[in-house]
Amino acid sequence: MNKFQFLENGSITSTPGFQAAGVVAGFKRSGAPDFAMIYSEAPANFAGAFTSCTFAAAPVQVCRTRVLNSPFLRAAVINSGNANACTGATGLANAECTCELAARRLGIRADEVAVSSTGRIGVQMPMDTIRKGIELAAAALSPEGGSAAAQAIMTTDTVPKSVALQLELAGKTVTIGAMTKGAGMIDPAMTVPHATMLCYITTDVKADNALLREMLATNVADSFNRITIDGDMSTNDTTIVMANGRSEVELKAGTPEAEEFRLALLEVMQRLAREMVMDGEGATKFIHVEIEHARSVADAKLCAEAVANSLLCKTAWFGGDPNWGRVVAALGYSGAKFDPEKTDIYYDNMPVVRNGGDAGTPESALCDIVKQREFTVRMNLHDGDDNYWVWTSDVSYEYVKINADYHT
Amino acid sequence: MNKFQFLENGSITSTPGFQAAGVVAGFKRSGAPDFAMIYSEAPANFAGAFTSCTFAAAPVQVCRTRVLNSPFLRAAVINSGNANACTGATGLANAECTCELAARRLGIRADEVAVSSTGRIGVQMPMDTIRKGIELAAAALSPEGGSAAAQAIMTTDTVPKSVALQLELAGKTVTIGAMTKGAGMIDPAMTVPHATMLCYITTDVKADNALLREMLATNVADSFNRITIDGDMSTNDTTIVMANGRSEVELKAGTPEAEEFRLALLEVMQRLAREMVMDGEGATKFIHVEIEHARSVADAKLCAEAVANSLLCKTAWFGGDPNWGRVVAALGYSGAKFDPEKTDIYYDNMPVVRNGGDAGTPESALCDIVKQREFTVRMNLHDGDDNYWVWTSDVSYEYVKINADYHT
Repeated sequence: MNKFQFLENGSITSTPGFQAAGVVAGFKRSGAPDFAMIYSEAPANFAGAFTSCTFAAAPVQVCRTRVLNSPFLRAAVINSGNANACTGATGLANAECTCELAARRLGIRADEVAVSSTGRIGVQMPMDTIRKGIELAAAALSPEGGSAAAQAIMTTDTVPKSVALQLELAGKTVTIGAMTKGAGMIDPAMTVPHATMLCYITTDVKADNALLREMLATNVADSFNRITIDGDMSTNDTTIVMANGRSEVELKAGTPEAEEFRLALLEVMQRLAREMVMDGEGATKFIHVEIEHARSVADAKLCAEAVANSLLCKTAWFGGDPNWGRVVAALGYSGAKFDPEKTDIYYDNMPVVRNGGDAGTPESALCDIVKQREFTVRMNLHDGDDNYWVWTSDVSYEYVKINADYHT
Repeated sequence: MNKFQFLENGSITSTPGFQAAGVVAGFKRSGAPDFAMIYSEAPANFAGAFTSCTFAAAPVQVCRTRVLNSPFLRAAVINSGNANACTGATGLANAECTCELAARRLGIRADEVAVSSTGRIGVQMPMDTIRKGIELAAAALSPEGGSAAAQAIMTTDTVPKSVALQLELAGKTVTIGAMTKGAGMIDPAMTVPHATMLCYITTDVKADNALLREMLATNVADSFNRITIDGDMSTNDTTIVMANGRSEVELKAGTPEAEEFRLALLEVMQRLAREMVMDGEGATKFIHVEIEHARSVADAKLCAEAVANSLLCKTAWFGGDPNWGRVVAALGYSGAKFDPEKTDIYYDNMPVVRNGGDAGTPESALCDIVKQREFTVRMNLHDGDDNYWVWTSDVSYEYVKINADYHT
């Protein structure tokens, strides 16, 4: 029996005490919504995880300061259409100023405001557009605004990504709401989230910032850091969780309740990670890449990521071609240590490679599997006890089209 | 003044004392030539460099044995259409048997025969086709057979790749002839050649195997290991150089003549490396990626390879989009250590990024550069004294088409 339940049309405002809005400020030429605001009626504990890219965008630098210096968050403002990355001192001042303007409008302090940006790199933020966005979004804030906010943070995403679930903890109902965006510049090779992905999570548990940070770090490693679309990491990746304590359920580190909550939070994050891959730029397939019985987790990770990022594997999957030679080649150049003559490979549960050679399954049976919308490529190295998995997508004509034409 | 001169229509048989042939044995369904033979009239000193892929193909295993145990080579047989990789003990026995059959037909010893294969992975070699290939090729051997051999080793290559040059050494004329194949599964991240690339080089200098090996290793690092098409490395990569001594020019390690010869050999290898990138699967562009003033060669290499392998950069180049944000993002996630605020980027000689931000060059001027068939992306990290460069191609619709449809 599931201990938690996903809500229909759940969003960041499914969590009591949070309001949100998504509006058209004018960053996007298309005229689509491009500015979102989240507002917490009470001071919220929080934690964040950010890109490890050397060129961290200005808003990421501001959020890192918040994590270090601010006890609470009250709000977040997010624009799409301009990344405010590689914009130097001016960009940083603009990101700070954005928080200042939002704080003034909402009657809170600037250091209680988080800021995120996604879109084109290297262009200074048009501050008039920011002003307009703050004005419109603050006026539109509502406890039903979660879906509009999720719409406003999209770039090449084809669908907005919102989710919420509830669980019973200590006899009370606790809610977790979340939204994310990200369809390109998605790669898992880092120890913090990355990819042009933004994720904001709201919850009404009471937990201190240290516990939130610990949960976020653990869960990011098992969700957003497990997905790859194109192997490119972004300058702007941000995941922030805000907890307002409204449910009066207080979590303490090391308790069964905290662990139960963390697993529910993981469920939310994995759901969003999955939706990002499903909505990957030009993606037509969702592939589970699983490594079993490696000598170490590091070896398993090298293998999984080599296969999941192999352009030859990804184009073969797009073509519905079982081509296991490309999987084997990727394992072989991954840098992982293993004995190639022990390697078994399965597509779903069908043997493909046995002891490093053809397992003899008729090609037509393998074709049937790789033609599916979703399938598993499982590799058993028979060389140890460690495992790792990654979710990936294929690479299609559409991927090339989006990225040859679109100007991020 | 150039010390060496490329020959018109040069090939492996431009070198006196070498014969070759390329024939239709029947590995390819298309009926195109698919079997090549090289024959040295005299025992030739030799050296080889091979894939570092864990799943090294059977012919690679055989060639490694030759390098360890054989003083000379007299011949090489090469088929396209079947890689004889992941074929276990049977595959290894077939590769040995191929050498045996060729040796018997040519009246030489099996351990004087090298063997290479390229094509589909995981299918046992049809030995009747091998027999037929050996018979036909041995009968067709000729001092004019170099071009036919280069034709026969092609897979997704659109043009055969042959070259020869001559230089004066110690008052005598020395020749280097070479052929290569390879258009996909090309990546530079290894310390030995890789990619589904085969390269056979003939020369008439006299040099011992140790000196040949040293020259080959140095030159591979500055040629084949500098190119990337799709970031995938192959199970079958092989480069072999054969020196028959016919010119009576003897090279000794450490002499100016040896260095002069090595540079001429490098010229040949770089010419072929360049041709491979130019003929990369679906490639429409040739991009020089150059890193200057990095803290270490390792940092420079990380940066160059991250940019050269970035799917987002490669699709932007295909689209003629100057999008330097993607270049910056790739530098940022490369794992290299550098100060982002010192980074300058140039397209050809046009400033693009200065101190980590927009250099202010009008976009139209940058578009003019990235729309060219060939251009340079040069990144000066201003953070040390070390450099590295890589050659790469773009990723086009055609790349996806070739790899979604073609069954390697």
